[in-house]
Amino acid sequence: MKDIAFVLYPGFTVLDLVGPLQVLSALSAFDPEYRTVVLGEDKAPVPTDTPLGVTASHTFDEVPAPHAVFLPGGGVPTMTALADEKLLGRVRSTAEHAEIVGSVCTGSLILGAAGLLHGRRATTHWMCRDLLAKFGATPVAERWVRDGKFLTGAGVSAGIDLALHLVQELAGEDVARQVQLIIEYDPQPPLGGIEWAGVDIAARRPLVDNWLRTGLAGHPKLLAELIGS
Amino acid sequence: MKDIAFVLYPGFTVLDLVGPLQVLSALSAFDPEYRTVVLGEDKAPVPTDTPLGVTASHTFDEVPAPHAVFLPGGGVPTMTALADEKLLGRVRSTAEHAEIVGSVCTGSLILGAAGLLHGRRATTHWMCRDLLAKFGATPVAERWVRDGKFLTGAGVSAGIDLALHLVQELAGEDVARQVQLIIEYDPQPPLGGIEWAGVDIAARRPLVDNWLRTGLAGHPKLLAELIGS
Repeated sequence: MKDIAFVLYPGFTVLDLVGPLQVLSALSAFDPEYRTVVLGEDKAPVPTDTPLGVTASHTFDEVPAPHAVFLPGGGVPTMTALADEKLLGRVRSTAEHAEIVGSVCTGSLILGAAGLLHGRRATTHWMCRDLLAKFGATPVAERWVRDGKFLTGAGVSAGIDLALHLVQELAGEDVARQVQLIIEYDPQPPLGGIEWAGVDIAARRPLVDNWLRTGLAGHPKLLAELIGS
Repeated sequence: MKDIAFVLYPGFTVLDLVGPLQVLSALSAFDPEYRTVVLGEDKAPVPTDTPLGVTASHTFDEVPAPHAVFLPGGGVPTMTALADEKLLGRVRSTAEHAEIVGSVCTGSLILGAAGLLHGRRATTHWMCRDLLAKFGATPVAERWVRDGKFLTGAGVSAGIDLALHLVQELAGEDVARQVQLIIEYDPQPPLGGIEWAGVDIAARRPLVDNWLRTGLAGHPKLLAELIGS
């Protein structure tokens, strides 16, 4: 059995997790060797960044050595998680023997804070891309980035693309197409794709700095390292 | 306050709900008049079609008259829901005064079973499209379909497109573009979009009939009405 694990922490962005969870859970129907699990400290409801609460299927102790592990991102709560030594310890030990260590959105900052991305190419939500460099990583503006065992995705909805790519890696193109059909992933953004030329990334830096100030109010040393450009 | 409500029932497809929930929760940041809520019979964890459990933010009784209500779909558990008179009663009463009654994937079949789609154009997951006609609706092969107050979406991931369309309806194009940026919805399916010409819809009908037989084993009359082409 190869477990594909998703890590819960309070206030994470729920689509970051559910996009790839839905895709990779469908993989099990084609290759029962793979099983998705959702990991938490316990199985009590965990709040998300929406009114939906979620519960883990397993504790970290129940699945100490998954085949793959994924971290979802978020806003202020993810900044708080960057100083959560208990969570970072779970991430390090879960990632240690995993063959795939992944993230969606600012989940890659948690991988960075755990010391896992030194010298790696990685991506994250477009607003926070520069922050990756603070953890020794090389920020890349791509939908998903593979560097060794690390597979990081861009913001929120990018987890669906990343996960379909992973299904293709693990089970081949035909299975990836079947999973794509199951989730009817034939995107039609009503206003088309994002026109990046018109997006002022630097203008959002004060918002990200506010997230950092709020999330890391109790951790002035880390805050000082991460804030500002 | 205009509540945008999402309905839980056991075994639903979690991305059907989380896609539009994430999009419409972001709307609140731009127009605080809107609030998303997640409705259940109680606030105990509800299983989904993945290892993730979820919890409601409110009971049905706490939010009797939302502005909008959305039903997620699923496989066998959604077929079971078609005969769940308690759930159908909740759907009818919640939908009665709502200005928008929506669904993602086979959630539209629940709207149909509740008697709400007679004479309406509607859509659902591509594998189940013909079933809509059994409820007096006209099946339409589009990403989302608006007919009066009914807004039905295609399978699973279509809920993201549908919800961005709804944000545009409710708050305008600029806000819809801002929300799209927040969730970084610039889709890049690794194998491209779905090539529908190569998809044999009729060949999947036995799978759908199996879902119906399993989900409606205790309801032979409804099963007989719905099964077969």
